[in-house]
Amino acid sequence: MTRLQLYEQITLKGSYLCIGLDTDITKIPKHLLKYEDPVFEFNRQIIDATKEYCVAYKPNLAFYESRGPQGLESLERTVRYIPTEQFTIADAKRGDIGNTAEMYAQTFYDFYRFDAVTVAPYMGHDSVIPFIRSGNWVILLALTSNEGSKDFQLSGIQGQSGQSDEKLFEQVLRKARAWAGPDEMMFVVGATHPSMIEQIRRIVPDYFLLVPGVGAQGGSLSEVSKAGLNATCGLLVNSSRQIIYASQGEDFADRAREAAKKMQIEMKRQLETIIV
Amino acid sequence: MTRLQLYEQITLKGSYLCIGLDTDITKIPKHLLKYEDPVFEFNRQIIDATKEYCVAYKPNLAFYESRGPQGLESLERTVRYIPTEQFTIADAKRGDIGNTAEMYAQTFYDFYRFDAVTVAPYMGHDSVIPFIRSGNWVILLALTSNEGSKDFQLSGIQGQSGQSDEKLFEQVLRKARAWAGPDEMMFVVGATHPSMIEQIRRIVPDYFLLVPGVGAQGGSLSEVSKAGLNATCGLLVNSSRQIIYASQGEDFADRAREAAKKMQIEMKRQLETIIV
Repeated sequence: MTRLQLYEQITLKGSYLCIGLDTDITKIPKHLLKYEDPVFEFNRQIIDATKEYCVAYKPNLAFYESRGPQGLESLERTVRYIPTEQFTIADAKRGDIGNTAEMYAQTFYDFYRFDAVTVAPYMGHDSVIPFIRSGNWVILLALTSNEGSKDFQLSGIQGQSGQSDEKLFEQVLRKARAWAGPDEMMFVVGATHPSMIEQIRRIVPDYFLLVPGVGAQGGSLSEVSKAGLNATCGLLVNSSRQIIYASQGEDFADRAREAAKKMQIEMKRQLETIIV
Repeated sequence: MTRLQLYEQITLKGSYLCIGLDTDITKIPKHLLKYEDPVFEFNRQIIDATKEYCVAYKPNLAFYESRGPQGLESLERTVRYIPTEQFTIADAKRGDIGNTAEMYAQTFYDFYRFDAVTVAPYMGHDSVIPFIRSGNWVILLALTSNEGSKDFQLSGIQGQSGQSDEKLFEQVLRKARAWAGPDEMMFVVGATHPSMIEQIRRIVPDYFLLVPGVGAQGGSLSEVSKAGLNATCGLLVNSSRQIIYASQGEDFADRAREAAKKMQIEMKRQLETIIV
């Protein structure tokens, strides 16, 4: 999917919502356990209920891998089921040397046919470049939503002058924007750092930001939107637990629809501030 | 496996060799393709041929994941086949927020039953701590073997005084040694930076280092050993392609045995320098 196609979906739906399919077999409603593949059945019903309110789905690989080969079969069925007009993100946070990164790119782009994959920057350019492909997207971790983001991402980096003039996550943004343009790369920026988003927009004005951390992790949709929206939206705000586990009863899909719709309504209002 | 048990295997075999099972179905000898699971058959023959010369096996997850659920079945069979006295490492380089990291720990420790998993530090303490378990090992990336290690890992970090007094990888080592001791944590240090290993030993004298980059990537076993060996060895030196693809003909297992034995002989010589 191209950036223009994504933006068209966003304007069509009045939504920049990404739904995280962090599907934990121990947390889904018990009545689904009678299905041959309960995780797929849960995802199928969530997708049917929410697809008109979101533009992207993001399965978190850990939740599928923890069930071994069978879990990956649930993933394969899920990705195949997601409508083609949705942007699909493998939340995998891979990062390895060139020949290995190439194998991961094949895994997510060619085998599972995701549009995008999340990648960690620690190993540098040759761990990221194999993921850059026309028609696909690398979504690089910059400033994550968790407490541990303070350990290294917010460390001050020594500049040319010997003075610290940027944080590690800013160095990541500055270096990475030279590796790929805004049609092939996005950045992960946690909603728990709204005050940093304006600053990030100065470094990467045109790139999409994938923003986790709204909802269960405490980030605010309106703060993130005010700081992060650009002329072509430039945001995908992710919500996982707050939507998919809105209810753990038989009404889970209806409650998920309501939770997604509620976010979409707020997003539509935010989008009106940029569309003139 | 405990640190003592690992050290016992090292002294018993006169080896601190780890063999990387980066098994690429397009590179294995053609006569294996008639087997139902050619990747497992290749691994089985490699393990049989090399197990007396090494103390650890390290499957690289990318090579299994790229074939989807079927590839993970080859991985599952492989890990089950590795003799229990071998230390097993999932080279997965995961790193995610706490609840996700916990799912990855379950994947590698509980589902596949690996001893250890490689983890990336970018997301900080709460992405690493879920992997710390008595009887298992987290192997944290510090200074990797690839060219891109210069992009961020070697960046100067601003110290307390406002002066840059350490590199990012040193900050990772210093912070991480407070998260887990040398019985639960190791560090990845590439063989392509032998001059840094002495300095790393000053920061983490007692920890095992997992050292990739000898062989195909150009690192030297003797330089790494001179700088890195400690009183209880403290090194696992990995070789992947140089051993498993020593030949692509029907003699691949014999050639792999010879390549592993050649490294073991050199390692035995190096170990004699520390054992008095």
